[in-house]
Amino acid sequence: MTVERRRRARGTLILIGGSEDKQGGRMILSEVARRAGDGTLVVATLASERPDYQWQRYQQVFSELGVKRLEHLGAAGREDVVDPRLVKLLEDATAIFFTGGDQVKITSKLGGTPLLTALRERFAEGVLVAGTSAGASAMGEAMLVSRGPEETSHKVEGAFYMTRGLGLVSDLIIDQHFAQRARIERLIGAIAENPGVLGIGIDEDTGVILEPDGRFHVLGAGAVYIADGQGVTHTNVSETSGGHTLCLFDVALHVLNHGTGFDLGSRRPFRAPV
Amino acid sequence: MTVERRRRARGTLILIGGSEDKQGGRMILSEVARRAGDGTLVVATLASERPDYQWQRYQQVFSELGVKRLEHLGAAGREDVVDPRLVKLLEDATAIFFTGGDQVKITSKLGGTPLLTALRERFAEGVLVAGTSAGASAMGEAMLVSRGPEETSHKVEGAFYMTRGLGLVSDLIIDQHFAQRARIERLIGAIAENPGVLGIGIDEDTGVILEPDGRFHVLGAGAVYIADGQGVTHTNVSETSGGHTLCLFDVALHVLNHGTGFDLGSRRPFRAPV
Repeated sequence: MTVERRRRARGTLILIGGSEDKQGGRMILSEVARRAGDGTLVVATLASERPDYQWQRYQQVFSELGVKRLEHLGAAGREDVVDPRLVKLLEDATAIFFTGGDQVKITSKLGGTPLLTALRERFAEGVLVAGTSAGASAMGEAMLVSRGPEETSHKVEGAFYMTRGLGLVSDLIIDQHFAQRARIERLIGAIAENPGVLGIGIDEDTGVILEPDGRFHVLGAGAVYIADGQGVTHTNVSETSGGHTLCLFDVALHVLNHGTGFDLGSRRPFRAPV
Repeated sequence: MTVERRRRARGTLILIGGSEDKQGGRMILSEVARRAGDGTLVVATLASERPDYQWQRYQQVFSELGVKRLEHLGAAGREDVVDPRLVKLLEDATAIFFTGGDQVKITSKLGGTPLLTALRERFAEGVLVAGTSAGASAMGEAMLVSRGPEETSHKVEGAFYMTRGLGLVSDLIIDQHFAQRARIERLIGAIAENPGVLGIGIDEDTGVILEPDGRFHVLGAGAVYIADGQGVTHTNVSETSGGHTLCLFDVALHVLNHGTGFDLGSRRPFRAPV
């Protein structure tokens, strides 16, 4: 492998909008299992309040889907993440799957650790990284986080903040449970702050497979929204403080479904050949 | 007035996203009151399950806002609408305000009646017509209606159908309670079916004042979403049946706030001069 090629090489990222089918056709998890192949699939439960439950659940599903070797990467706190055995786990993995929960639990445990360095290195070497719900959101350089309990009142859905994600993919802000939690406003608010970034909102039981060439395909039952702010001609986002209403002219919006895709390089949607 | 001018003349339309402020600064209702001037403001409660309550409420608010002459246009069913006294009510009005409720109650009572003809004639002569919530939705040629109780589960928000509205404004599909009820999907679904139509989603306590020249200004606390499908390059809307997920490439989306506006002729947003 030349230096040039090594620098540009990276793995495939599978981003899932949460609540993916675990009992029926399991289209999305089957794809994760297929790509893990005969290697080891590591299930990372860092986001979860109930890591053992999540591990047991995904262990069962992925076993049923034919994955032979499964390992659990769990850590209650940052102090557990320094365990060198976890780095060793990643070294042996062909795929790493992040469960849902709270994305800040992922970044606050992993940020600045040798384990995150190992994750990035493995990804750069071509290892598959997948994440569902919070596990998908965490993959961007910037990451959306809700303030307070959004489910109980989506009238305050606009209340969000951004923080740093794991940075496995740049120029992409990833949101999940998209239609189900009515998150278009916060995604558009996020791209208003930096129109160079693409916003991607993934519905439940829906995923995107982002290949190393920068193109992704949509998989699953729901829709994937792409909000592109590159052509924005006016916004008040830098002028407003908390109580103000955002304005934003000329966002390009694409609604993608299974069988379509998007090229991050050209910023164009496409219909996948059947 | 020349024939040419008469044919093109029309009134001003004020469309409100529902739940407009009735006790504080009352910015939007004040504008309705101001434009009613010294004439008669007719409050039409056709959409409401509780027409007398609505009439009393708006009668009080508009009285407090200085409207001297107020009349109630109520009708429990289509049989009441044929009453020629109602046509007479409209003849004396300088402004007509439609309350919220169910937009199908408006169109099913008014459709094909002399009262609707009178309403259109008065509007064409320059009378102000305003509507909030269902009363706003009813003003388009096509009108969005939910199937079933959307508030209890916005997971089925995609379930909607379209029917004919009152047709005071063409090429516009109007939705209301927009952010509050997470309706971007149904608005985009509606423009997918006819990309020549503009979708406009109005938040609660927010309104647009559409002047006879085809330009509107935004007024109030929330946002107004404009979804323009004219540039759409691909959609599957004609191929899909109930269970499928919509796809749609290249929607132009504008998020407007107080102090901005939109020109329906050029399909361009603008910042209003302060």
